[in-house]
Amino acid sequence: MSDTPPTLGGVFAAVLTPLDAALAPDHAALARHCRWLLANGCDGLAVLGTTGEANAFSVDERLAILEGLAEAGIPAGTLLPGTGCCAVPDTVALTRRAVELGVAGVLMLPPFYYKKVSDDGLFAAYSEVIERVGDARLRVYLYHFPQMSAVPIGQALIERLLARYPGTVAGMKDSSGDLDNMTRIARALPGFAVFSGWDDLLLPLLEAGGAGCITAVGNVASTLAAEVYAGWRDGGAQAAHGRLEAVRTVIAAYPLSAALKEIMARHTGDDAWRTVRPPLTRLDDAQAAALMEALAGTGFSLPPAP
Amino acid sequence: MSDTPPTLGGVFAAVLTPLDAALAPDHAALARHCRWLLANGCDGLAVLGTTGEANAFSVDERLAILEGLAEAGIPAGTLLPGTGCCAVPDTVALTRRAVELGVAGVLMLPPFYYKKVSDDGLFAAYSEVIERVGDARLRVYLYHFPQMSAVPIGQALIERLLARYPGTVAGMKDSSGDLDNMTRIARALPGFAVFSGWDDLLLPLLEAGGAGCITAVGNVASTLAAEVYAGWRDGGAQAAHGRLEAVRTVIAAYPLSAALKEIMARHTGDDAWRTVRPPLTRLDDAQAAALMEALAGTGFSLPPAP
Repeated sequence: MSDTPPTLGGVFAAVLTPLDAALAPDHAALARHCRWLLANGCDGLAVLGTTGEANAFSVDERLAILEGLAEAGIPAGTLLPGTGCCAVPDTVALTRRAVELGVAGVLMLPPFYYKKVSDDGLFAAYSEVIERVGDARLRVYLYHFPQMSAVPIGQALIERLLARYPGTVAGMKDSSGDLDNMTRIARALPGFAVFSGWDDLLLPLLEAGGAGCITAVGNVASTLAAEVYAGWRDGGAQAAHGRLEAVRTVIAAYPLSAALKEIMARHTGDDAWRTVRPPLTRLDDAQAAALMEALAGTGFSLPPAP
Repeated sequence: MSDTPPTLGGVFAAVLTPLDAALAPDHAALARHCRWLLANGCDGLAVLGTTGEANAFSVDERLAILEGLAEAGIPAGTLLPGTGCCAVPDTVALTRRAVELGVAGVLMLPPFYYKKVSDDGLFAAYSEVIERVGDARLRVYLYHFPQMSAVPIGQALIERLLARYPGTVAGMKDSSGDLDNMTRIARALPGFAVFSGWDDLLLPLLEAGGAGCITAVGNVASTLAAEVYAGWRDGGAQAAHGRLEAVRTVIAAYPLSAALKEIMARHTGDDAWRTVRPPLTRLDDAQAAALMEALAGTGFSLPPAP
């Protein structure tokens, strides 16, 4: 473990975005969900990420979501919004506004349309954003998710960015599922906060000096992740880790956003929760029934709905 | 070959976007390049595609490029702009304005962030766009480029879209490099215009009933592609096909936009041509020298610069 505390740490949900029937983000429902997560184990809220369908929203829709959270009184210091777009000007616009609103940091995908780009190109893209935002309060968490972005962020690039922008480049979310990658980076870069994108790797990553997790399953099972996080130093996390892994395994067998929205629809009694924006699709009836039966089989109960 | 003429046909360049030193699109230089291409073998101009770095531009920058082309007097009927974004509202905004300006059609990527999405989800995304644009003049060309978008568009999805939106769904660009896929679709769907994204497949695709090509190499070698297109019916295309393939092989060994911009910089004497937007990078000096030497080795000469 590193002696330097990571910049951020703990349990973050990759927050779902509730939609209305016209597929528009429902700001009130999102704020309600955020408050419920903060009251049930979440240290922070990674809104506007992969699970939150951010890349299905325009920049204006994403800005309106950030403004809506501020107006609803969600503490900006709990927020780690996704701001990485394909186009640098879009990433700059979102990042600048997030920083103005006082967020804890931003989770930044690399530009993800062009594939097999060089580290020089990715360094230039991140540099452009950091310098155009030009704000000392900016804290960037790099988002490594090769299975979805198809643009990996390797350790050599991270080290170049850290050397050039110390204090600003603060950590990463690694959704690769590759524990060796996360632990190697966490050990090599003390003070650089490494979050796992998967719940099952939270405990082993913490043991290797990692910072916590940012996960989709955290939308429903943040209480369990919080038990793991609270218990890992004194060895009391193993039972919660096992229960969390059972829940994660059930949910991860389905498309994540759709499965989690199905669970929230059933839990809250609000059918609107099922709405997703294309290209995602909701679960069909058979999938939904199988999911709920398997989830019940784990013995897990969600905290009371708001 | 189909008896029904395809909606569009011939040689289209996947047009480069010249940038200024601040990485902003240079509208005057783009219009000049477009006029030069139309005067040198191009039947049409696929602006704002992969080669044109469209996904590095914001929606507003792309709209300004379309407006700039109209103001510069580039005939809208020659234009096949790319309009497909990750977010349906962005695709709608670009497509709507392109149609208002009178373009021949739009080349539409699927939403490309989420991977392994279902055909139902992709159908819903294209449906949302077509119905929200709601304009009888709309002609959609689907853009299948699995190596870059990582979201393939298969024949079953195409057939569903054609059945639901006949007349609107007009064709596709297939950049997979898989000739079997292109020819199978061209033969199965008479009247559906199949364009190859690669110059070497232009001749065999035409022989199978395809419509033409939309290629990066067309930015410099459209004269050769035009020879192939003009000669294929009477068997006179083979020599031009061989010369085009030699040029394509040289250029395709490098990142395409950077290599083509290097060639244009040398050909026009305008260093600004070399500027690309992150995450792309320009060729280094050694790459540039090797590219130009290999290109000279093919014996190909570009048409006189404007």
